[in-house]
Amino acid sequence: PPGRKVLIVYAHQEPKSLNGSLKRVAVEELSKQGCSVTVSDLYAMQFEPRATRNDIVGCLHNSEEFSYGMETWEAYKRGCLSNDLIEEQKKVQEADLLIFQFPLYWFSMPAIMKGWMDRVLVQGFAHEFPNCYDSGLLKNKLALFSFTTGGSKEMYTKGGISGDIRYLLWPIQHGIMHFCGVKVLAPQICFAPEYVSEEKRKEMLIAWAQRLKTLWKEEPINCSPEWYFK
Amino acid sequence: PPGRKVLIVYAHQEPKSLNGSLKRVAVEELSKQGCSVTVSDLYAMQFEPRATRNDIVGCLHNSEEFSYGMETWEAYKRGCLSNDLIEEQKKVQEADLLIFQFPLYWFSMPAIMKGWMDRVLVQGFAHEFPNCYDSGLLKNKLALFSFTTGGSKEMYTKGGISGDIRYLLWPIQHGIMHFCGVKVLAPQICFAPEYVSEEKRKEMLIAWAQRLKTLWKEEPINCSPEWYFK
Repeated sequence: PPGRKVLIVYAHQEPKSLNGSLKRVAVEELSKQGCSVTVSDLYAMQFEPRATRNDIVGCLHNSEEFSYGMETWEAYKRGCLSNDLIEEQKKVQEADLLIFQFPLYWFSMPAIMKGWMDRVLVQGFAHEFPNCYDSGLLKNKLALFSFTTGGSKEMYTKGGISGDIRYLLWPIQHGIMHFCGVKVLAPQICFAPEYVSEEKRKEMLIAWAQRLKTLWKEEPINCSPEWYFK
Repeated sequence: PPGRKVLIVYAHQEPKSLNGSLKRVAVEELSKQGCSVTVSDLYAMQFEPRATRNDIVGCLHNSEEFSYGMETWEAYKRGCLSNDLIEEQKKVQEADLLIFQFPLYWFSMPAIMKGWMDRVLVQGFAHEFPNCYDSGLLKNKLALFSFTTGGSKEMYTKGGISGDIRYLLWPIQHGIMHFCGVKVLAPQICFAPEYVSEEKRKEMLIAWAQRLKTLWKEEPINCSPEWYFK
């Protein structure tokens, strides 16, 4: 609906890829609805995935023994995080919905997107004990993981060789998003696009566009072990 | 035993950290046994986590539409992967045992180590359909994930807020290592070292050193859904 803000965090090297098309479809459809859409195109930004001392501007809290978690927490409170992190945190802060668009790499997101999680979702900003899980600091936001796989749908079933696709969603949906208080919408999964016809790939894009039309009416999943491992 | 080769892939910024100590203990104990030990110290190497076109030296197979998986597969066959990847693949090829030492970041490994997985375990080198899972190309090797957590042991139990720690091991042990044919030893987990006494941290190091003495007699886990989700 008009006024809603969406951040798309996108990790694919090739604009012509299905991931690129899925991202464009989301930008178009959500803009058409009157949403304001921002894209963090991680490869184009050459986003830094490594969690290092460079993320803190100026002096360290404890320069004797570097602790990334503690230093970024302190730096967040002092306003001394590096600019690229402050930029991403502003985008997250403003967003009602976060969409993560990526190809599945090794049962998870590509390292460049994992680095976004590691570096942006700093303690003090996204969570701060005891404000985690249902009382995480990013509550009242929604997240949706939209990704493509190499393996087929049959491989990612309970009895399949790669197990239920939901097994691998646990760390990213529950361990990251739920931990920060973010509610999770059902994932959008395109299975094995490289092994299907051009026609089928078009259907995947259409299905995504269709879903986005009524996305704001969806209820979040019940992000508990039952949903994942029932 | 003498002659066995071990690769430790290590991801911590601070040598004085518990992760740094766990890595040193492993190097010392395994060297004492006569093993030959190599360490990939990812932060010290400034290891590149991003999967990009730079990983292919020279021309692309398809420069019209970049596919990282396809291009690195082709480049591997032609011997045209970038030098940092060739170096890591040599270390993996020679190793009987891979030890991954890291602090748990967001229910997984830090992005710099995920980047090592994404970039080093190239199709053709680590797997090549139908050579995956039990017939993966790295069979006859062992892997062990050794990591520290922020959360306590109680949080990471079946009824705990973060769920059984094994849930989050599925993508990394089964999805990555098992997929490449590598057999997995039980993980070594130090829970919440930042919240325990110096004395307790020393016990964690001693326990690791002790385990390493008889490591070569251990049987791999049964890397199937039952082990993770029973």
